[in-house]
Amino acid sequence: MPSPEHEALVAMLASAPPIAAPTVAEQRANYDAMMAAQTIPADVRVESFSIGGNDADFVTIDGQAGTGVTILYLHGGGYVIGSNVGYREFGGRLSRATGARVCVLNYRLAPENPYPAAVDDAVAAYRYLRAQGVPAGKLVIAGDSAGGGLTLATLMALRDAGDALPACAVTFSPWTDLAGTGATMAPGLVDDPLVSGEGVGVMAAAYGGARLQDPLVSPLYGNYGGLPPLLIQVGTREVLLDDSRRAAAKARDAGVPVTYFEGEGLIHVWPVLAVNAPESAAALDQVASFIHANA
Amino acid sequence: MPSPEHEALVAMLASAPPIAAPTVAEQRANYDAMMAAQTIPADVRVESFSIGGNDADFVTIDGQAGTGVTILYLHGGGYVIGSNVGYREFGGRLSRATGARVCVLNYRLAPENPYPAAVDDAVAAYRYLRAQGVPAGKLVIAGDSAGGGLTLATLMALRDAGDALPACAVTFSPWTDLAGTGATMAPGLVDDPLVSGEGVGVMAAAYGGARLQDPLVSPLYGNYGGLPPLLIQVGTREVLLDDSRRAAAKARDAGVPVTYFEGEGLIHVWPVLAVNAPESAAALDQVASFIHANA
Repeated sequence: MPSPEHEALVAMLASAPPIAAPTVAEQRANYDAMMAAQTIPADVRVESFSIGGNDADFVTIDGQAGTGVTILYLHGGGYVIGSNVGYREFGGRLSRATGARVCVLNYRLAPENPYPAAVDDAVAAYRYLRAQGVPAGKLVIAGDSAGGGLTLATLMALRDAGDALPACAVTFSPWTDLAGTGATMAPGLVDDPLVSGEGVGVMAAAYGGARLQDPLVSPLYGNYGGLPPLLIQVGTREVLLDDSRRAAAKARDAGVPVTYFEGEGLIHVWPVLAVNAPESAAALDQVASFIHANA
Repeated sequence: MPSPEHEALVAMLASAPPIAAPTVAEQRANYDAMMAAQTIPADVRVESFSIGGNDADFVTIDGQAGTGVTILYLHGGGYVIGSNVGYREFGGRLSRATGARVCVLNYRLAPENPYPAAVDDAVAAYRYLRAQGVPAGKLVIAGDSAGGGLTLATLMALRDAGDALPACAVTFSPWTDLAGTGATMAPGLVDDPLVSGEGVGVMAAAYGGARLQDPLVSPLYGNYGGLPPLLIQVGTREVLLDDSRRAAAKARDAGVPVTYFEGEGLIHVWPVLAVNAPESAAALDQVASFIHANA
């Protein structure tokens, strides 16, 4: 029987933050738990189903007149963490703000499923929604962080495959450059409370391996020609700020209608995480206007 | 100026455990901080110096008659974290228990410096101590966890290079198999509060890359012939238990005199971490007896 002093150490270790990296499973649980701590209003309706083996949720608002638009939503989490379950609260806010039906896709994650699994799943989900009868002109692809980069990669993959493109796309703080070459990634430059260059480097390696400059891994390096109108929202308190600035410039240079909003002092994916902040409501108002104008 | 609601999120994120993996720098700081929380008695003397560009400490006890033995100590931390500074308290306990001068080496760490950097540094430190006039027969190599595996790898490297070997070696819960094939690594089998198979897998990849079965990365797979007497201590509440069991068996099969202690219910490297536990005092008593018998 170990001594009380030994068992006190065991108890301390159990309650202490991990010394080393939490496991991927722990990271996923941590992120989902943080997201699940937000109350989901009673009128948010979640219908769970499956697309090609991946879970997905249709999120709508009871009693709200729909607009006929469906948003395929690609959640954030560095291609390693995040889930449809964690994004139900945000899916509800997005549906309420826009009047759209929000389809939150639980695409496959790295490191078990590196690139191109996420792109394949997003493309398959888009085609599934079209096959269910939603016209491309009433489809929107949207996502935050890794899901924002995945939104752009999915548009490029659909274009290259000859699919009809969605009416428009929305990205919140998109991660467009997994090679991490953005100027705002410089250590010490941006006081980002959520993302670090080293942290995203680990996730980039898990997802993209050695292919970090492939266009469908890092859409910053891709061809924006022919893409539909884009809304890009990003905060200035983000190491990933330059990922948005550069993608917006490249898209504009390619002739894409880009609506770009840079929130002074705002952090990574604030519309998702800052549930009660007026800046989040304002961001979703802009999303609603943008979608209404384009879909 | 961001709203109070936005800034409340920023404050929450600052105090919350990280969602995703802490950076390597954060992991190192966390581990050193946990170790530094232990009080170092006033009579522990630390002399810092440098061996081939790496920091090192000689740790001794003021007023204690030395035995003339020097222990080259290789700290734990998965080859990724840990430092000479973090191990000063344990170095003091080890010196007090054994009467030896303890040389705690700050060997280079992965991922910046993967294998063979740590082995090269340990071999260089051993040769440095001999060049300073310590006879091989008065030298001991010791280490915990990754440092325990590194102890075995260093013995093999020294033997293969034709160096005179130390009098004996001591390992606390040595990590001998970075390929993770031990039976006690099976998920759910051992309730280990400190180490997980996935956690060590990340560190194994950082240090050993694709060479996880190379003998100097994973000394379990090495040749034990001609090694000096070994003391191996391990607890049964460890996923790495089988790393010790199998290494002890292989060393015995090769004719090495092995003293093996398995502490029922004890956790990974308890003699290092459970500062005030009687099991730790008992473990260091065994180390002292073993060294006195061999050096």
